[in-house]
Amino acid sequence: MGDDSHLIEETTEREEILRGGFLHVVRDTVKLPNGRFATREYVLHPGAVAVVPILDDGRLVLERQYRHAAGGVMIEFPAGKLDAGELALACGRRELLEETGYVAREWAYAFTMYPTVAYSDEAIEIWFARGLELKGAQLDQDEFLDVFTATPDEFLGWCRDGKVADSKTLAAALWVQNVIAGTWKLDWQTPSVAA
Amino acid sequence: MGDDSHLIEETTEREEILRGGFLHVVRDTVKLPNGRFATREYVLHPGAVAVVPILDDGRLVLERQYRHAAGGVMIEFPAGKLDAGELALACGRRELLEETGYVAREWAYAFTMYPTVAYSDEAIEIWFARGLELKGAQLDQDEFLDVFTATPDEFLGWCRDGKVADSKTLAAALWVQNVIAGTWKLDWQTPSVAA
Repeated sequence: MGDDSHLIEETTEREEILRGGFLHVVRDTVKLPNGRFATREYVLHPGAVAVVPILDDGRLVLERQYRHAAGGVMIEFPAGKLDAGELALACGRRELLEETGYVAREWAYAFTMYPTVAYSDEAIEIWFARGLELKGAQLDQDEFLDVFTATPDEFLGWCRDGKVADSKTLAAALWVQNVIAGTWKLDWQTPSVAA
Repeated sequence: MGDDSHLIEETTEREEILRGGFLHVVRDTVKLPNGRFATREYVLHPGAVAVVPILDDGRLVLERQYRHAAGGVMIEFPAGKLDAGELALACGRRELLEETGYVAREWAYAFTMYPTVAYSDEAIEIWFARGLELKGAQLDQDEFLDVFTATPDEFLGWCRDGKVADSKTLAAALWVQNVIAGTWKLDWQTPSVAA
């Protein structure tokens, strides 16, 4: 789509404005394409991985979790933040096991999503997982969630009816629909057990 | 899905930890289902509206905009924050006109999405708009974006190929695909011109 110089902003300054227990927020000064200056405040985030786990019978593994900021129980695919230096696939395997108790034999990268382009640098990689075997969840003592399964039709119906409202889960639903229809292809890999 | 009391957190305290020029962040203390306490830091947001504008020939109206936090130019549907007291439909009409220059004769609510359930209370309503007429965009002098059009097939191909990475736009793509296929129905309304 050609030259983007009429759109791009250049950072001229950065100031840390919040170092919370969880959130880290900076304020950048940027030079706009017209030469004027503006500020951009946003959350610095390590990135995250979400997993679409598909059982051998085609059912999806999902979670119900209370989300304080959203003020309700949300239906979501398993997901979590990258640890320092952690690769996305390793994070997906860790979060899938910790939260749902499943290990997966095969993995496929699907897409990357920015949940909040206006005020966070978070990117979420979405991976599909199949060849699932139940080992038992390893939740932290202060982590509470229900794991359940649904057919793709049930799940897509919930997306249509507003029962699914989490962005990564809705965006992944586009992939669920097209992968199951066979119109979008995934490149499955079998990582080594130790990796 | 039954009783959620084993999942729900109760707020016991709130502290404002950032009042930026743009971001407002609070730290809530919550009582967990096990009686222990935890803190939740998140952005307070007024909410937003995104619009899926469909031209009479079936093409979609999209934007390319540099997003500093994401560090690149993103393909997005038009969207913006709710003004104080503003209704979602009014916000959608305002943002569509300001950013793309179009007014729409018919509108339909599609779904609501939480972009970042872990650290923002933002909810985005996604509306479809048709019966479009070009009046001319009204961008702020410090706002820079390109407006362009694409067929639904082109747009869905970009979602598959990773060229679309914005969460509201990817989630809306699930609706674009199913509305165009005729499998999901929208309830179109014709708001008064003045509203």
